[in-house]
Amino acid sequence: MTLPKFLLLGDSLTQTSFEGWGATLANRYQRRADILNRGCSGYNTRWYLLYADSHGIFEEQPADRITLVTIFFGANDAALKDLDGKHVPLTEYENNLKTLVQKTKSAYPKAKILLIAPPPVHREQRLIFQKQRYGDKATGIPERTSEHTQLYAKACVEVAQQLNLPCLDLFSGMVESSTDFGSYLSDGLHFNQKGHEFVGQRVLQAIDQHFPELAVQPDPITGQPNNSGSTCKGLPSSGPYHEEINPEGYEEAFEKQNC
Amino acid sequence: MTLPKFLLLGDSLTQTSFEGWGATLANRYQRRADILNRGCSGYNTRWYLLYADSHGIFEEQPADRITLVTIFFGANDAALKDLDGKHVPLTEYENNLKTLVQKTKSAYPKAKILLIAPPPVHREQRLIFQKQRYGDKATGIPERTSEHTQLYAKACVEVAQQLNLPCLDLFSGMVESSTDFGSYLSDGLHFNQKGHEFVGQRVLQAIDQHFPELAVQPDPITGQPNNSGSTCKGLPSSGPYHEEINPEGYEEAFEKQNC
Repeated sequence: MTLPKFLLLGDSLTQTSFEGWGATLANRYQRRADILNRGCSGYNTRWYLLYADSHGIFEEQPADRITLVTIFFGANDAALKDLDGKHVPLTEYENNLKTLVQKTKSAYPKAKILLIAPPPVHREQRLIFQKQRYGDKATGIPERTSEHTQLYAKACVEVAQQLNLPCLDLFSGMVESSTDFGSYLSDGLHFNQKGHEFVGQRVLQAIDQHFPELAVQPDPITGQPNNSGSTCKGLPSSGPYHEEINPEGYEEAFEKQNC
Repeated sequence: MTLPKFLLLGDSLTQTSFEGWGATLANRYQRRADILNRGCSGYNTRWYLLYADSHGIFEEQPADRITLVTIFFGANDAALKDLDGKHVPLTEYENNLKTLVQKTKSAYPKAKILLIAPPPVHREQRLIFQKQRYGDKATGIPERTSEHTQLYAKACVEVAQQLNLPCLDLFSGMVESSTDFGSYLSDGLHFNQKGHEFVGQRVLQAIDQHFPELAVQPDPITGQPNNSGSTCKGLPSSGPYHEEINPEGYEEAFEKQNC
């Protein structure tokens, strides 16, 4: 028996997720699911589709072992056309998202799918980052703007609506939850610790809301996500809890659980 | 193609590792390896052997896909005989560790193996935890002592020496690195944030030292563990770096990487 898997598809905001939100997810699903991080920094949806095909992202697991897939793109697609080669036109971004969903459904028919729309871009932080990275060669013109990224975030939300899938809209979420969404970002684009905590909580909330069978109810006394006081309807814990093991006849608990 | 996997075998100190040290590991190996956490809270080596057999821990992956296995037990084996049913005699603990190593080698012959010896136990914190959890029913007698756990830690180190394997001795490491090793623990047994950071750094150091082919050299400028400035001899990054993708002929980079 192998544990069910969650598959995280995305760009750097996914690749670096074990700094924060991916770890939050892995911790919540301890003994219930493995988190396979398939984020690729700097990728747009166009490149990711080629990556997925050439690296077997939709073939790597048995069809029934992927339980949840997050599809989280837009930060690079929304780079400005004349300033950054990562740019992908809005219509192609929408179509690419649909293709990613279709490929997910085809490969992993049992998987729940959560679309995640990109967060806002913070102009001033981005310019400071440019200066730090490129010094005098910094153009002083941001290669992304929040206004342009917002179009992609809205498009992601609309694609989700068209496909009847849930969408975690980080753009709106971050803008609406703070007077300064820059407080969630380190360089105007990537999450800092506060941002990771925000995303982690929002991803868990989205799972709880849209996929209640995957919702973990932590132990009400200890808050632990996986002990004998925790539950998750759709994802059983692997192995008996230690309280269920009688030290005098410990084999019995494992014989019962053998599956 | 699937990413290589690291397999973490252990008790609660492993099960809860995505609170800290497991996430540190997952973050360091982003795009190079998946971390499969197979820790089970409250388990001793005796129970874990039954768990591993009944749940196919040594059969779940293709033989050549497991790159690193951590074997981290002792915290429960070292519980005191007359006070806690988790107790396992010292000699059996040693033999069980050897069996776990043998099963790992047999199932995953290419895997590097890192033994991890249990951390010290903090008496006063443990008694406070007892009182919080059990109130008036708390016995006031700790079910583990640091002196007794130290025997198991030493035994783990000796087993590693006998088998010519590296061992990360957290007992000595924590005792020697601070005038108060309790500063690493939350309840006298489990890691707090500082403890998780300590363990995360020590695990990475142990990998770098003993398995240099698995050592990741982060980008010297950004500190990022996986970008075009990072290297890891034995574990290539999955997919081309975005700087290697020419937006005008992006297919080429993926054709090259197709493996």
